This record gives sequence, structure tokens and C-alpha cells, in this order.
Amino acid sequence: MVVALSDAQVTVVGLGLMGGSLAAALRRRGSCRRVVGVTRQAAKVQRARQMGFVDDATTDLAEGLAEADVVVLATPVTDIVVKLSTIGPLLNPDALVTDVGSTKRAICAAMEALPASVQAVGGHPMCGKESSGLAVADPALYEGKRYVLCPLPSTTASALSLATSLAEGVGAKPVVLDAARHDAAVAAASHLPYCMAVALVLAAEELASEDDLAWELAASGFRDTSRVAASDVRMMLDILQTNRDCVMDALDAAEEALGSLRELLTVKDDVQLGERLTSARNRRMRVFP
Amino acid sequence: MVVALSDAQVTVVGLGLMGGSLAAALRRRGSCRRVVGVTRQAAKVQRARQMGFVDDATTDLAEGLAEADVVVLATPVTDIVVKLSTIGPLLNPDALVTDVGSTKRAICAAMEALPASVQAVGGHPMCGKESSGLAVADPALYEGKRYVLCPLPSTTASALSLATSLAEGVGAKPVVLDAARHDAAVAAASHLPYCMAVALVLAAEELASEDDLAWELAASGFRDTSRVAASDVRMMLDILQTNRDCVMDALDAAEEALGSLRELLTVKDDVQLGERLTSARNRRMRVFP
Repeated sequence: MVVALSDAQVTVVGLGLMGGSLAAALRRRGSCRRVVGVTRQAAKVQRARQMGFVDDATTDLAEGLAEADVVVLATPVTDIVVKLSTIGPLLNPDALVTDVGSTKRAICAAMEALPASVQAVGGHPMCGKESSGLAVADPALYEGKRYVLCPLPSTTASALSLATSLAEGVGAKPVVLDAARHDAAVAAASHLPYCMAVALVLAAEELASEDDLAWELAASGFRDTSRVAASDVRMMLDILQTNRDCVMDALDAAEEALGSLRELLTVKDDVQLGERLTSARNRRMRVFP
Repeated sequence: MVVALSDAQVTVVGLGLMGGSLAAALRRRGSCRRVVGVTRQAAKVQRARQMGFVDDATTDLAEGLAEADVVVLATPVTDIVVKLSTIGPLLNPDALVTDVGSTKRAICAAMEALPASVQAVGGHPMCGKESSGLAVADPALYEGKRYVLCPLPSTTASALSLATSLAEGVGAKPVVLDAARHDAAVAAASHLPYCMAVALVLAAEELASEDDLAWELAASGFRDTSRVAASDVRMMLDILQTNRDCVMDALDAAEEALGSLRELLTVKDDVQLGERLTSARNRRMRVFP
């Protein structure tokens, strides 16, 4: 680990929303020496260059990695895990490998198997959109957002420092966390909202099967509560698969909460029901004032 | 029923978000002759006048109703039901009574007991905010939104026509519906999203009881999915109480949908899980392209 971020070539593997935005943010802010994009789609090589999001781009992973001081894996979580098991021989021996995947235990475990000379830090920027792809990439996506960093037991102080510079270099606020603690927290903060949004849409579909008037009357309340149900399915399925235990716990808690609302409505205990609604309202207003 | 809306005094009872915005929209658009507000709070009389939302305002219900050609009840649903049982003797015998309550069966049933000379049409504009009160009232709130009208069996064509003018007079798009059909549809379109948002917050609170990191990592996904949990509790409790059967059906459908996601995660049937997620995504994108 020799370079400062300002002297580094950063190679971003995967030019979707997260990778494309990260590359664009690094370039716009002049945070590193050079940004290289790697994508499987030849058309994206041209587009990323034209958009000014990269200094160069390639469909050849080996070529993209060869001179990278920092490698950011920005593909779906299970693809990151697969790539971590194969890219070892392609890496610059002094490289720092990091990622932007939404779950961290599976990825950090896979990072342990990288060559000993390579440094690695798991990463998860707390931002996104329900739409995906390079077309919606935005150099401002990371601005002011939390950027979780999960060092491995073997991560050196200078590697963690470089990862910190990367997070700051896209305008985000780094937060160092244990991978297991991260995964439990995002199950509640992020994966549960997704599941609730999906369940809402599926339930409404069931209810509207006899009378589709419900869809015509759906207004801003339904729109916002269901927004994240439009997220990319491949990405979300990967997330649920690699955080299964925590998401199951979160779903249990949600089923219990929903069941308690159902029960209070059934027995017409409107005093207790009102207390539950007030408790939820107060908490929501504390979290998002 | 003698007047056109342009010749009518419209009295709005309740100057919160919905009533205040309705009064303001009528005045700004010059849709009626005169707008009078009725509120229990003396301070609001002054404020509504100063904001230019009314021609006049009063805390005296009898005074506000005496010369009203159109009366719009804009208090919480159960208060509307109570008012309907008491205002009969205070009404101009030719008045049209309508409301902006979010459920319609209980209100339309209470409207049946009004004096025979009075005309009545239930109303539900499909708009709102999670914040409430005159301070957030907005003359543009109704613009382009659907405005459900539920005539009673005794409603005359001219009364329904006047109610239609009122909806159009605030910039909304009137939709004539049966009260029972309305209530079932909004249970899915509006009341279920609220319950899902509340359950999400309560579940996250339970999950975060051991580690409140989840709240720090809560980002736009949690924010949007939980937004309506910040709705006014009195208003929402009234809605749930007067639409109990339909909301219970909706909660059953949601519990089933959530349970099926939990089951597919448990048995690791990621193919079927992916199909459910895709189905929800496709539906969400059809409803909100």
C-alpha cells in the first residue's frame, strides 16, 4: 500500500448506478489520478467515456485490473463474491480491493481468500435509487451520504485510510463498522423496507383482483410506500440471499407488528391501537424530523 | 338546490390541511361567490383571514352554516359523523352538504338522516400530506387529483352536478363511486400503505432495541417506505375505525404476502422468490410508470 488516493488509478468494475456514479464522482472531484471502468457491455465502454465518467474503460477485466491501485467491485453481491474468488492472480500485488455491495459478511469472508499482499476493505455506501443502470448514474449520488467501511482482521491502518479517502473522495461520510453488525442493521434499515414495499404491492394486487379501482385511487401514499419495490430484482435477490438470517428476523418482527395491528382492530381496542400508531409516528418523526 | 357554484357561499367546517386547502383553492380560483371558514380555534379565524384563504371565518358553527349554499365538512371522519347528526336544524333548507373524509360508508349513512330538503353527497379528494394543520394548507393541493363523489340514493342530479363543480372548482377530477366500493378500494390503496409504514417503524424499533445503528443507517428507502407513518393519528384512527372490515381484509392479504416471502427465504426457493419480487416490480412500474 504505497499510494495516496490522489496518485492512484481507481478501477471500477461494473458501471451501473453505483459504479458509474462512483467513477463520475471521483473524476468530477479530481480525487484520484485516473479512473478506469470495466464493464461486460461494449456499448457501455463508449457511453462511459462520452459521459466523461471515466478516463478509460474496457471490457477486459484483466486489462482493467493490471495497473489499478484501488479496485472497486460494483456488481451485484453474489457476482462480487464470485469475482473475489477469481481476480487474485489479476491484481497488482499492492492493490486495495473494496466494493459497494449492500451486504458485507459474505463479501468480507470472500475477501479473506485474496492473495496475502493484497489489502481489502468491505464497503457499503448508504445511497441508491430504485432505478438502475449507467443511464441514471449521478456524480452527486454519494454526496453527504454515509459510506460504511468494514475492515478485515488483516486490513492495515494505511489500507483503511486509503478506503476512507475513497469514501471522502466521492463526497460521502465514512463509518467504520463490523460486517455482522452492519448486516443486522441494514436488514432493519433497508432490506425490511424493501420487503414491506413488495408485500404491499402483492397484497394490493390480490385485493384488486376483483376490482382494479384500487390502482386508480392509488395516490402519493401508495406511491411512496411502494417505491423501493421497483428496485432491480437481481440486486435485491442477491442482498436477501446473502443476508437471509437477518432478513428473516426482520420479517418476523414485521409480521408480529402487522399481526398486532390486525388484532387490535379485530377486538376494537382503539385505545391501544392509537398508542401503537402514536408510538410509530413519534419514532418516525425522530428519525426523519 | 338553486345556485350555481359561482353564486354560492361555500362554508368549510374545519380549517386543517384539507379544509384550509379547499377554501384557499376556491378563493384563488374564484370558483364561488364567498368562502366562509368555521373553526373551533379563535386564533385560526385570524390566521385563515390573514392568509387570504377565506372571505370570513368564525368559531360559531350556527353562524357559519346559516347562509351556506354548500357546506363542506372537513374534520376527522368520526367528527363528521357526529356533526351530521346535529347540524340538520342549523342548515339552510336548500343547502348541499358534502365532506372530505377518507372513508365513505359511515358518513353517507349519517347523511341519510339529514332533513329531507337538504341534499348530500359524500366526498373524498385523493390527496393529502403526512403533515397536518392550516400551516401546511396549500391552494394547489387538489390540482389534478381524483376527487371521489358518493351520491346517496336520494341525491338529485342537480346536487351531484353542484358537487362536481365543487371538485372541479378546486382543480380536481371528480369520480362518482358507490361508497362501499370506494371504501374497499382505499383500504388497499391508502389504508394498507399506512399500516405497512406503521408496522415497518414498529418492527425496526423492535430490531433496533439492542443496537440503534439501524436508525443511523436508515436512508431514503426507509424514509419513503415509512413516510405515511407520520400521519396524524387521530385522523388515521378514525379512518381505520370506520373502515375496519376492509382494513382487516387488507391486513390479512399483507400478512399472507409477507409470510410467503418469509417462507421462500426460509426454504431457500430463490427462483420463486425472484418471481414474486419481479411480479411486484412489474406491477409497481405499471401503476407508477
